[in-house]
Amino acid sequence: MSYTLTEIVARFGGHIEGDASTVVSQVATLEKAAIRQIAFLSNSKYRKQLESTHASAVIVAKSDAAATSLPRIVCSNPYSYFAKLSAFLNPLPLSKPGIHASAVIGEGAKISPDVQIGEFVSIGDGVSIGSGSVIMAGCSVGTNTTIGVNTRLYPRVVVYHDCIVGNNVIIHSGAVIGADGFGIAMEEGAWLKIPQIGRAIIGNDVEIGANTTIDRGALDDTVIEDGVKLDNQIQVAHNVRIGAHTAIAGCVGIAGSATIGRYCRIGGSAGILGHLSIADEVEISAFTLIGKSIREKGVYSGIYPFSEKDSWLKNAVHLRHLDDMAARIKQLEKELESLKGRD
Amino acid sequence: MSYTLTEIVARFGGHIEGDASTVVSQVATLEKAAIRQIAFLSNSKYRKQLESTHASAVIVAKSDAAATSLPRIVCSNPYSYFAKLSAFLNPLPLSKPGIHASAVIGEGAKISPDVQIGEFVSIGDGVSIGSGSVIMAGCSVGTNTTIGVNTRLYPRVVVYHDCIVGNNVIIHSGAVIGADGFGIAMEEGAWLKIPQIGRAIIGNDVEIGANTTIDRGALDDTVIEDGVKLDNQIQVAHNVRIGAHTAIAGCVGIAGSATIGRYCRIGGSAGILGHLSIADEVEISAFTLIGKSIREKGVYSGIYPFSEKDSWLKNAVHLRHLDDMAARIKQLEKELESLKGRD
Amino acid sequence: MSYTLTEIVARFGGHIEGDASTVVSQVATLEKAAIRQIAFLSNSKYRKQLESTHASAVIVAKSDAAATSLPRIVCSNPYSYFAKLSAFLNPLPLSKPGIHASAVIGEGAKISPDVQIGEFVSIGDGVSIGSGSVIMAGCSVGTNTTIGVNTRLYPRVVVYHDCIVGNNVIIHSGAVIGADGFGIAMEEGAWLKIPQIGRAIIGNDVEIGANTTIDRGALDDTVIEDGVKLDNQIQVAHNVRIGAHTAIAGCVGIAGSATIGRYCRIGGSAGILGHLSIADEVEISAFTLIGKSIREKGVYSGIYPFSEKDSWLKNAVHLRHLDDMAARIKQLEKELESLKGRD
Repeated sequence: MSYTLTEIVARFGGHIEGDASTVVSQVATLEKAAIRQIAFLSNSKYRKQLESTHASAVIVAKSDAAATSLPRIVCSNPYSYFAKLSAFLNPLPLSKPGIHASAVIGEGAKISPDVQIGEFVSIGDGVSIGSGSVIMAGCSVGTNTTIGVNTRLYPRVVVYHDCIVGNNVIIHSGAVIGADGFGIAMEEGAWLKIPQIGRAIIGNDVEIGANTTIDRGALDDTVIEDGVKLDNQIQVAHNVRIGAHTAIAGCVGIAGSATIGRYCRIGGSAGILGHLSIADEVEISAFTLIGKSIREKGVYSGIYPFSEKDSWLKNAVHLRHLDDMAARIKQLEKELESLKGRD
Repeated sequence: MSYTLTEIVARFGGHIEGDASTVVSQVATLEKAAIRQIAFLSNSKYRKQLESTHASAVIVAKSDAAATSLPRIVCSNPYSYFAKLSAFLNPLPLSKPGIHASAVIGEGAKISPDVQIGEFVSIGDGVSIGSGSVIMAGCSVGTNTTIGVNTRLYPRVVVYHDCIVGNNVIIHSGAVIGADGFGIAMEEGAWLKIPQIGRAIIGNDVEIGANTTIDRGALDDTVIEDGVKLDNQIQVAHNVRIGAHTAIAGCVGIAGSATIGRYCRIGGSAGILGHLSIADEVEISAFTLIGKSIREKGVYSGIYPFSEKDSWLKNAVHLRHLDDMAARIKQLEKELESLKGRD
Repeated sequence: MSYTLTEIVARFGGHIEGDASTVVSQVATLEKAAIRQIAFLSNSKYRKQLESTHASAVIVAKSDAAATSLPRIVCSNPYSYFAKLSAFLNPLPLSKPGIHASAVIGEGAKISPDVQIGEFVSIGDGVSIGSGSVIMAGCSVGTNTTIGVNTRLYPRVVVYHDCIVGNNVIIHSGAVIGADGFGIAMEEGAWLKIPQIGRAIIGNDVEIGANTTIDRGALDDTVIEDGVKLDNQIQVAHNVRIGAHTAIAGCVGIAGSATIGRYCRIGGSAGILGHLSIADEVEISAFTLIGKSIREKGVYSGIYPFSEKDSWLKNAVHLRHLDDMAARIKQLEKELESLKGRD
């Protein structure tokens, strides 16, 4: 399937400069693009790549439109334009409605007739799955869980019992939704388990990465609001709430009962302690531990800078004596003041 | 199923203040509790919530008993009381003894007749599974592994060959027990694999969270002692030993041959380097790397504090010059001393 | 199966000191070795264990050969010698060629006749699997993916569509290869998904640990070169390239488009930000975030040292005032200089 720039602009907007009959069939990076491929420039920093690209056409912002003589689509947001064009050129394989003969479907399950259920899938009693959803091989959906419409579970996803997964959700392989939160109480030298009777509730348009875990609530629910995007290997503990449209990079850990606002962006391997509250539009750097609530939007960091090991060793040893250093500076200031007075 | 406070106290102890005939059927938080629900107060900090709760009854410590006029159970440890009451009100679904027709059972496997084995389960040759255990859909248990009594494997757990899992163990979905440890030796420019011929041994009353990994030993065994509680996405490397009743939060990494004591508590995303030894009753803060052995019980931390990014940048730049700062303070002290002497 | 030292040396080289007819059947640690077991000493630091070991023989370097009177094999690299001997004494179970009756094989799949495919395995359309490979229970291999020869997928591995896995690769349970990278573009208050149309390409002789995730590329490919060794729970984002023979410990996160050199060694829970380049032979300490490119080989660290919590608190508070401390030292130096001038 290939399209002229004219056809693309008719569908997605923007305007064309150069040969509007140029035909493209795939998206690519400026660096690797070949003939019949369309690349994009979303960051003027890479403008130089426009000169050497072998793309047949490019998507650029107005401010970069004059920087190339290639046929180009000029638009306000080249990156989202590219996202939409790529989705159009690379549709997901058509779903194959029907339930594989090997799948095990529980009693009272309500599965829309156009749902695709793959081989070795376990669907518990009372589960409901909405129209157009695809449950791929080896997934397990626990009793009484509800899955919305047009949702896709990649192979080997597990959703425990009594959870809710919304519409247009994508969950990647190995993710586990609704496992017990980590609730224990010490009594007489041993831990008692606190039953985890809340649910995990996943909103609409959420994407959950491979091997990410979202625990069910202890008493109340764990809630992932609409439009949240979670990368791989994220751990979301019980009773966390993640606000709509927040995006979280890989390996982040969020402890129990933390509340994260809307439109936050959290960098990889960051951590958020329990029972905290993070405002809307907060950006947290990678590798940063948030140990108290954040009330104002902004960018927050706490990263120990790396250096060559010898240099790190030489400097880091003083971290255990910072309080002493601060006291000595104060003392020096006092003594110097007194010396100056004596003159 | 609902119970009067009288019935509850008869079973779990404590004493009642207020209407002993009050009936409850479920536990809840003070904040969300509704009629016929019983809430608890384990931290006097939240005592204010007693005033606004809609719970029918509450569980409180003696010191908080006068802070509410609600029907209440007064006991010494409201949190563990609540844990036991919740477990009583929320029993696990009854197991359904029997082996699903789709399960594959190896030769010589000894499976107690009341074990429940779900669909798509693989049980290797020579496996032994004790009475009352439940192996849920899609689990894989390797050859010659032994699983004790009343143990539950949630869907898609993998236990490799020759491992031992104790009694009353809970393992959540996606956990992998007994995979090869990371053992490699460099020879002539390439890594040779060191066969991992030890086992992973899991004691009794252990809980293992979703997507946690516990590697088998290289030569000797990896050992998780009785009563250990592990949250999600923890990595336990080969030949680690974790002492009884230690609790570890999510995303912690423990490197090879580390030995951790009994009754330790380790915060989320902490790390422990290899070949270290941690004493009993050590508490390690979240996000802290333990790089040498800890001989004394106590609380240990090493967290870089976060701040607004601009402030962090301005301050962090000096970390690479701390040694120079320390030298300059020393020099200032010396010169000041010499100036004072001259007066 | 047991062997004399003579037989072992005939196969693996080295020379014997002491009784060459000594028979051994298994490897062990110096500490735990029993009769008919052979131990090794690769680090002279543990030379004392030679005195107390119950091993029947030991593998030592020339420099340690005189430190024991036990029958011994003397060689240049005792650790790699041990690795090879252990692999010889502990061969993997013989594969059982054939496809389990329950496995689902897609149309046009080309599976070499001596491949072993276990129960509940899903093989997509157009998949190719080379001679001698073993695909264990419950694995899922997506359409058009190619797997080389003598490769082993442990139970419940998922490889998405259109990926390439090389020869002699080992992938442990729960690993997910080729899931979508984390690509999103903001438009009008919501995230658009960027289709991930690149592949994940795994070279030869790679080992991938349990629950490790390697995302497919966004447009170009994610590439793991030959001989790379990855421990458990590592996250490799889209378009990362890891150079040949690099070894990475557990829980490391590597962000998108990072390029890592050959023969690097990366410690546990380290992180590498996106779009960086790391030279060959770089060693990165555990728990260190690499936030800019590294051009020179060497060892790099950035770890906040732990201490008792009270001490940590007292010292860490000054980290938010380092810039002020630096300014005050400068001011003190200036004033002192001026005082000295006045004398």
